[in-house]
Amino acid sequence: MNRYKITVEYDGTPFYGWQRQHNRDTVQQRLEEAVLPLTGKRVVMCGSGRTDAGVHALAQVAHFDAEKDLDCFRIRACMNGRLGTAPICVLSVEKVPEDFDARFSAAERSYVYKILNRRSKACLDADRVWHVIPKMDEEKMDLAARCLIGKHDFSSFRAAGCQSSSPIKTLNRISVSRRGDFIFIEVSARSFLYRQVRNTAGSLFLVGCGKWSPEDFAEVFRAKDRKKAGPAAPACGLYFSGVVY
Amino acid sequence: MNRYKITVEYDGTPFYGWQRQHNRDTVQQRLEEAVLPLTGKRVVMCGSGRTDAGVHALAQVAHFDAEKDLDCFRIRACMNGRLGTAPICVLSVEKVPEDFDARFSAAERSYVYKILNRRSKACLDADRVWHVIPKMDEEKMDLAARCLIGKHDFSSFRAAGCQSSSPIKTLNRISVSRRGDFIFIEVSARSFLYRQVRNTAGSLFLVGCGKWSPEDFAEVFRAKDRKKAGPAAPACGLYFSGVVY
Repeated sequence: MNRYKITVEYDGTPFYGWQRQHNRDTVQQRLEEAVLPLTGKRVVMCGSGRTDAGVHALAQVAHFDAEKDLDCFRIRACMNGRLGTAPICVLSVEKVPEDFDARFSAAERSYVYKILNRRSKACLDADRVWHVIPKMDEEKMDLAARCLIGKHDFSSFRAAGCQSSSPIKTLNRISVSRRGDFIFIEVSARSFLYRQVRNTAGSLFLVGCGKWSPEDFAEVFRAKDRKKAGPAAPACGLYFSGVVY
Repeated sequence: MNRYKITVEYDGTPFYGWQRQHNRDTVQQRLEEAVLPLTGKRVVMCGSGRTDAGVHALAQVAHFDAEKDLDCFRIRACMNGRLGTAPICVLSVEKVPEDFDARFSAAERSYVYKILNRRSKACLDADRVWHVIPKMDEEKMDLAARCLIGKHDFSSFRAAGCQSSSPIKTLNRISVSRRGDFIFIEVSARSFLYRQVRNTAGSLFLVGCGKWSPEDFAEVFRAKDRKKAGPAAPACGLYFSGVVY
């Protein structure tokens, strides 16, 4: 058996997320169909993690197995050809040892959450950002976010339906910064709870627009209670930005 | 008479450029229609410069006159409301003296030309970049571009149909830089010849992928002959990025 690792960019807007679903257009299904002419039979694309409907990826990683020994350059060319005008593209393909697993071998995953903070709607960045009108204080958001770094119980930012056995996760990094009208929330961890990043962004938003102080945010976090935290930030601002193995 | 200056962002993809044309969807016409409920009668939106079909704007500037003394905040809100889901938005509105002219008062205009330089097609940035596959040398492009700075005859980069009385222009700045797979060509001048930026980008591309040396580029420039230079770079990579008054 030959195992291949692929790195993929996609615009999540038209898809029902990563995971294959009956009668739904998903990224996983598109990729599985795109590789079919090479493998000759159905393969499963195992992603490093799922993304929700509308969430984008700058560098999602997946692996699949093929009986034939395939040329990596040819896999990329064939898949991108088959993907056609769908907003998914394979950035790179490499052959990996059979024990490589896109999900379980991941040492660190990163996300970027992008906010457009101005009065006028998003135009060139429609479907690519969360449009927030009230002027946000990114320094207060950055200050508030710091309490999340390290190993903690993230129950306050864990969505219903989370399949993780434990709410304890270790956040390696989080930072909030501004470039012009854009605010970027960048986070890295080995793994995340379901909707942890969007839920975190939704509560940092409350700090940014002055509804909560950084101390309020820390208190909500320590409460380990999803009901105390803010609503999830919309999917369209979230980018799965990379995996380290 | 009251004169207003508006700053506008737009995605040029669905429009036949800035300038109003019979039976064509243009940015100018959309803006003129959007202000109609406030002015009660047709106004002319005088832009700082035209953009071609498919060219974007981060901060295009225009002025218009109204008999009534209007509130700037209300103008923006009304126009953005009327523009609806069209990918145009008014970023700011200010009242200006009657002798202000978006076109003739401009002291400097700036453009950014954005290239995505990788094997795989543009996905999240579809219609927002020029996709160039051969690996480009941005340092050579930057070196080549330097000969354009200052007052010169830009005939080699002047498109047919240019209405400027002279091919002599003064380029204040030009630079080529890379961030990851993106290459940015940034230029500023008081004014430009027709398609000067796209024609310049098209020739810098030839330097970037090694077909021309920076010396070849300088020679083409000195020849003052459009036929010696490269083809125009596509519209979708070009952004009108701002005007200084």
